Amino acid sequence: MTHEELFSHIQAKSSYLCVGLDTDINRLPGHLLKEKDPVFAFNKQIIDATIDYAVAYKPNLAFYESRGAAGWESLARTMEYLPQEVFTIADAKRGDIGNTSRQYAITFFEQFNFDAVTLSPYMGHDTVAPFLAYPDKWAVLLALTSNPSNSDFEQLPVYDNSDFFNIVPYRLYEMVIRKSLNWPGSERLMYVVGATEAKALKRIRNLAPDNFLLVPGVGAQGGSLEEVSANGMNKQCGLLVNASRSIIYAGEGEDFADAATREAARLRDLMAGYLDKYIA
Amino acid sequence: MTHEELFSHIQAKSSYLCVGLDTDINRLPGHLLKEKDPVFAFNKQIIDATIDYAVAYKPNLAFYESRGAAGWESLARTMEYLPQEVFTIADAKRGDIGNTSRQYAITFFEQFNFDAVTLSPYMGHDTVAPFLAYPDKWAVLLALTSNPSNSDFEQLPVYDNSDFFNIVPYRLYEMVIRKSLNWPGSERLMYVVGATEAKALKRIRNLAPDNFLLVPGVGAQGGSLEEVSANGMNKQCGLLVNASRSIIYAGEGEDFADAATREAARLRDLMAGYLDKYIA
Repeated sequence: MTHEELFSHIQAKSSYLCVGLDTDINRLPGHLLKEKDPVFAFNKQIIDATIDYAVAYKPNLAFYESRGAAGWESLARTMEYLPQEVFTIADAKRGDIGNTSRQYAITFFEQFNFDAVTLSPYMGHDTVAPFLAYPDKWAVLLALTSNPSNSDFEQLPVYDNSDFFNIVPYRLYEMVIRKSLNWPGSERLMYVVGATEAKALKRIRNLAPDNFLLVPGVGAQGGSLEEVSANGMNKQCGLLVNASRSIIYAGEGEDFADAATREAARLRDLMAGYLDKYIA
Repeated sequence: MTHEELFSHIQAKSSYLCVGLDTDINRLPGHLLKEKDPVFAFNKQIIDATIDYAVAYKPNLAFYESRGAAGWESLARTMEYLPQEVFTIADAKRGDIGNTSRQYAITFFEQFNFDAVTLSPYMGHDTVAPFLAYPDKWAVLLALTSNPSNSDFEQLPVYDNSDFFNIVPYRLYEMVIRKSLNWPGSERLMYVVGATEAKALKRIRNLAPDNFLLVPGVGAQGGSLEEVSANGMNKQCGLLVNASRSIIYAGEGEDFADAATREAARLRDLMAGYLDKYIA
């Protein structure tokens, strides 16, 4: 999917909501457990319940892998079920040397036909290049994540001796953004920025004025959608805001899909307002 | 597996060789393609051919995932086939927020019963803690990897403002080691250090005198086993040196397993010499 197509879907739905499919088989409503593939049955209903309000879906690979081959079948069925016009992100946080990264790119871009995959930047450019080699596919680099330990390394001041202007240090996550913007295909880079770090979003938006930011942490982790939107939006929206648990586990009984609809619609209505306020 | 058990296996086999099972279905000898599970058939013969010379096996998850559910079946069969006394490493390079990392820990430590999993340190302690919570299981953190782009971020000078003594900057990979050694369970941390960075091994050994280092890059990537051993060994060996392609693709025909035996035996003989020289 191109940048323009993604923005036009955002405009059509007045939404930049991404639904995180962190589907934990131990948290499914009991009546689904008699289904042949309970995880897919759940995802199908969640997708039907939220498709009018969401532009993107983000399966979290860990929840599928932890069930072995059966989990990968559930993921394959989910990907087949998702309509072509939604943007799909494999939340996989991979990153390895070139010949291995190529295998991961085959996995997510060819086997499953995802539009995007999340990647760790730690090992540098050659671990990301195989993903950027696919036209119309996206690499989503971890920048400043939503977890408390982001202070351990992501926020440390770093120096780049090869950069004459780097007298005032950048933080590691800023250096990740600055350097990666020079990589071929960087117009198809997105960055993960936790909603819990809404103040940093302004600096990040200045560093990467045109790139989409994938922002988790608005739901269960407590980040503010208003702050995220005020600080992170650009003229083509430039945001995909993810909510996982707060949508998919909004209800616990047989009516879980209705509860998911209500929460997705609530977030979409807020987003429609912010799109009006900051773009129109 | 405990540190002591691993060292006793190293002593028993006079080897610290790890065989990387980066099994690419497109590189298998043609006669195996008629097998029901060609990847497992190949792995089985490689394991039989190298088991006398190797203490550890490291399946590279990318090569299994790229075949979807079928790949996970091959991985499961391979793990079932490996004898209890070998140390098994899932080369997965995962790393995610706590509730997701717990799922990955379930995948590798409970579903597949690996002894260890490779992890990216980028997101910090809370992404690693769920793995260290398993007694007798190991987390292998990326430190200084073997790929050319390790200069992008891993080698940048960083400062830790909370550390009064950090006046001279550490490189990011050194900071990863320094900080992670303070995490609970850090005696079950290993670090990935590329053989292509043999000179840095001395500094790393000083920073982490007791921890095992997992060293890839001796085979196809061209690192020197002699330098690695001279600079990296401690009194309990403290090294697992991985070779993947140079062993598993040593031959291309029906006698590929014999060629793998020869290459594994060659490395083991060198290792036996270095163990004598630096430990005995």
